[in-house]
Amino acid sequence: MTGMRPAEIRVSEIFGPTIQGEGALTGLPTVFVRTGGCDYRCSWCDSLHAVDSAYRDEWRALTVEEVWSEVTRLSGGVPVMVSLSGGNPAIQPLGELIARGHREGYRFALETQGSVARDWFADLDMLVLSPKPPSSGMETEWDDFDACLRSSRGKPQTALKIVVFDDADYAYARAAAARHPQLPVYLQPGNHTPPPPDDDDAPIDIDGVMERMRWLVDRVIADKWFEVRVLPQLHVLIWGNRRGV
Amino acid sequence: MTGMRPAEIRVSEIFGPTIQGEGALTGLPTVFVRTGGCDYRCSWCDSLHAVDSAYRDEWRALTVEEVWSEVTRLSGGVPVMVSLSGGNPAIQPLGELIARGHREGYRFALETQGSVARDWFADLDMLVLSPKPPSSGMETEWDDFDACLRSSRGKPQTALKIVVFDDADYAYARAAAARHPQLPVYLQPGNHTPPPPDDDDAPIDIDGVMERMRWLVDRVIADKWFEVRVLPQLHVLIWGNRRGV
Repeated sequence: MTGMRPAEIRVSEIFGPTIQGEGALTGLPTVFVRTGGCDYRCSWCDSLHAVDSAYRDEWRALTVEEVWSEVTRLSGGVPVMVSLSGGNPAIQPLGELIARGHREGYRFALETQGSVARDWFADLDMLVLSPKPPSSGMETEWDDFDACLRSSRGKPQTALKIVVFDDADYAYARAAAARHPQLPVYLQPGNHTPPPPDDDDAPIDIDGVMERMRWLVDRVIADKWFEVRVLPQLHVLIWGNRRGV
Repeated sequence: MTGMRPAEIRVSEIFGPTIQGEGALTGLPTVFVRTGGCDYRCSWCDSLHAVDSAYRDEWRALTVEEVWSEVTRLSGGVPVMVSLSGGNPAIQPLGELIARGHREGYRFALETQGSVARDWFADLDMLVLSPKPPSSGMETEWDDFDACLRSSRGKPQTALKIVVFDDADYAYARAAAARHPQLPVYLQPGNHTPPPPDDDDAPIDIDGVMERMRWLVDRVIADKWFEVRVLPQLHVLIWGNRRGV
């Protein structure tokens, strides 16, 4: 990692196109640029290989052109939605990449916990703010979160996506939604059997995930919370914990 | 069914709220008003109890106020999305029901194959046009379909949703999308084990549905069809063939 120039992007993996498995764009063919590094360390992180610095020797420092060349190779040069995920992609310099892709008709969605605001959020097509509930072990700094919202200047389509494992998470989700009544809210049952970073084929408790999905549907219905969307991680249902799909 | 007054609605079932399992509104809490009767008879129909006239003695002829009273009882008086489905709900007089619900802040989505156009399509919040591919055994009259689009006068959010079982269906979906480049397209893998009308607990081949889902994702990716959404029937994954959820 020596000699890393300022404009380089720390990349954990670039893969796709495959369908987006979460949130507002579920089902849409997407190329994923997963950046390396995160200012959070969620207890149930399902992308530790892009978070834990123990894996940083698997990350690459790439120029915008290098990232862009991989994206266009994967998409066969046909404009596609690009999801900037991580880790926390907000800690990477991604503004230039977005401008580069927009010139060729690609679109960009970014998913972040909302801890670090960037001016270039306003250039996105979709901003997914995914504040982390109590079960993550993290604490939300709402001032930082609101700064993220302000940086977007109302330009990208913006949504809240909140992972829910238990009652405390659910209460957190309700409060987060109440703080931001203008934002569409997506709830996602947590996967309590996330893949260990070294084992692509680790078993996943699909029955447990679906049980939590049914519980979550029952909760929102019982509360008459009718403006929310409840969606499972579709890729997990289709492919389990396998990476790169 | 004697003495049925003109304004009455033929109802197969009213249930919910539960989450919408298909298409653009997947995951959204919804009350379903399933009307009885259909001008189509698709080979793989998953709602035969609302289609086949053998079941018409289970259907009720209800006034707008009767339907509305059931919807509001189910939603506890809290505005919710109401899905008008069937059968083909377009053959029922639903304009007054929509106006009734709008006055109380409810929203309405209608799902139809697009064979019968109605002026009141323009009053919907969402119009889902679901033309039936070759595997259904039905033939699409595109003039009638286009009349449906015209009736909506561009007012509701409108989407195409197409069930895909095989290569011929996929080719049909591509052609339908090409005819209507302005409409978002949702592809849905078919369920080849739909529930028999008399057996709520009939087994469902989830593995087969997911196999078809993976196949469909592979098809759109291989074709670089990047503007489409591929979504399974979420309710089937969560609850199997069970009715009323």
